[in-house]
Amino acid sequence: MAGTDKSQEFTFRPSPAIILCEPQLGENIGTTARAMANFGLWDLRIVNPRDPWPNERAIAAASRADHVIDKVRVFATVEEAIADLQLVFATTARRRDMQKPVYGPEEGAQRMISHIAGGEKAGLLFGREKWGLYNEEVALADAIVTFPVEAAFASLNIAQAVLLMAYEWRQQADKGEVLPFSGGLDPTAPREELIGLFLHLEETLDRTGFFKTEDKRPTMVDNLRAAFARAQLSTQEIRTLRGVISSIDRAHLRQGRKAREAEAAKATKSKD
Amino acid sequence: MAGTDKSQEFTFRPSPAIILCEPQLGENIGTTARAMANFGLWDLRIVNPRDPWPNERAIAAASRADHVIDKVRVFATVEEAIADLQLVFATTARRRDMQKPVYGPEEGAQRMISHIAGGEKAGLLFGREKWGLYNEEVALADAIVTFPVEAAFASLNIAQAVLLMAYEWRQQADKGEVLPFSGGLDPTAPREELIGLFLHLEETLDRTGFFKTEDKRPTMVDNLRAAFARAQLSTQEIRTLRGVISSIDRAHLRQGRKAREAEAAKATKSKD
Repeated sequence: MAGTDKSQEFTFRPSPAIILCEPQLGENIGTTARAMANFGLWDLRIVNPRDPWPNERAIAAASRADHVIDKVRVFATVEEAIADLQLVFATTARRRDMQKPVYGPEEGAQRMISHIAGGEKAGLLFGREKWGLYNEEVALADAIVTFPVEAAFASLNIAQAVLLMAYEWRQQADKGEVLPFSGGLDPTAPREELIGLFLHLEETLDRTGFFKTEDKRPTMVDNLRAAFARAQLSTQEIRTLRGVISSIDRAHLRQGRKAREAEAAKATKSKD
Repeated sequence: MAGTDKSQEFTFRPSPAIILCEPQLGENIGTTARAMANFGLWDLRIVNPRDPWPNERAIAAASRADHVIDKVRVFATVEEAIADLQLVFATTARRRDMQKPVYGPEEGAQRMISHIAGGEKAGLLFGREKWGLYNEEVALADAIVTFPVEAAFASLNIAQAVLLMAYEWRQQADKGEVLPFSGGLDPTAPREELIGLFLHLEETLDRTGFFKTEDKRPTMVDNLRAAFARAQLSTQEIRTLRGVISSIDRAHLRQGRKAREAEAAKATKSKD
């Protein structure tokens, strides 16, 4: 999306670690870093990657998420990668015959946030491109996190799974939904100005004969007023709409005047 | 992720339409379809794609999301693509100087679900790979939806943005907490009728000389449309407002005709 604001610095706040177990493609490490960066995650750990690190393809695919790539740590085993964490979740799409609680991303994020807020560290395990996580890796986790996908069409790749978890973490962490920009609505105008618009319009419509009969007028007026009121018009918008009414109402006057001015100019010219 | 359960059928439940405006790369159409399929979305509409449809690259990238690709509809303009919808959101990363409410994905999803539960149709606009949506496209929407991304590292591509919205839709839909419709409101008219009102008004204002200069016209049009769009006008209200425009616009014609008829009547009378 065209939207990067490069003027802002990044703050390395406490956040869940993302652990990729034996990632095969360097590109997927890069797109994972990039997905993380969108939502403020930065702690990326890779376990026994297929290719040596640093990895050109990963760096290229990470785009601007250098601050994540620079901090990547490589481990020989998943046990070492999660050694310092107090809470570990395993992300998996397939059902596992295991005595593990299963959470959706929202609950998973909430639980991680509680732990992190309490000064503990949390992390999420993601598996291999083709085979996901092995059972013994899932067994190391406190719980399974899975996504509410349509069973017949589950096709999340690693970066997408990381993106969803990162997004939910951001959602839950900023429960007030911190958006990069907020509502672009000017304040609603004082009721007095709205009524001014109503009266202007209704006076005009009385002159143009819009209200067919006197007894129908009150209902028609109420309905028009209700429609405009719902728009929560600002002062500027009311001013513009009154200009619209005037422009249409008085066009024939302007055109009449222009025609008369043109006539007068012609008459003056023919006299010369 | 290795997790597809092919034994399950897909049910085409009411869900938001995903509208891609002038997608450049066929691959992105395919990955969008695939992202949608994860969370049960199936109504994909593309507006004036760069390449002809069907598109080999899109089909290849869609993987198993055939049921989405098969239902893709192609439109020449965004107006046609959203004609049947009552609620339209525009997804954008950049701030727009426009009188539009801004929601995060969660609130956006909740609002779409309310409308859909009430029998109306909703849709999300996504822009071009490099340039996102044009202002006049955003102006056609009821509100903007944006993602809570780190401003310095916003790098969501189209499929990721679609994935997040699809995920939130699924999240909110499964909550079972459908916000009740505001009592007493007629359903919002399909977007096509609202656009009819816009064109009627703008054509009239072109004739009356409301738009002082050509370069100011686009912004003024967008602002007027934004004001009317917020009112969530019903079919009847749109009809009434078009009657209002006609009444004011053509009053001088009626008055002119009445004056001529009165003259003719006087002339006839004086002959008797």
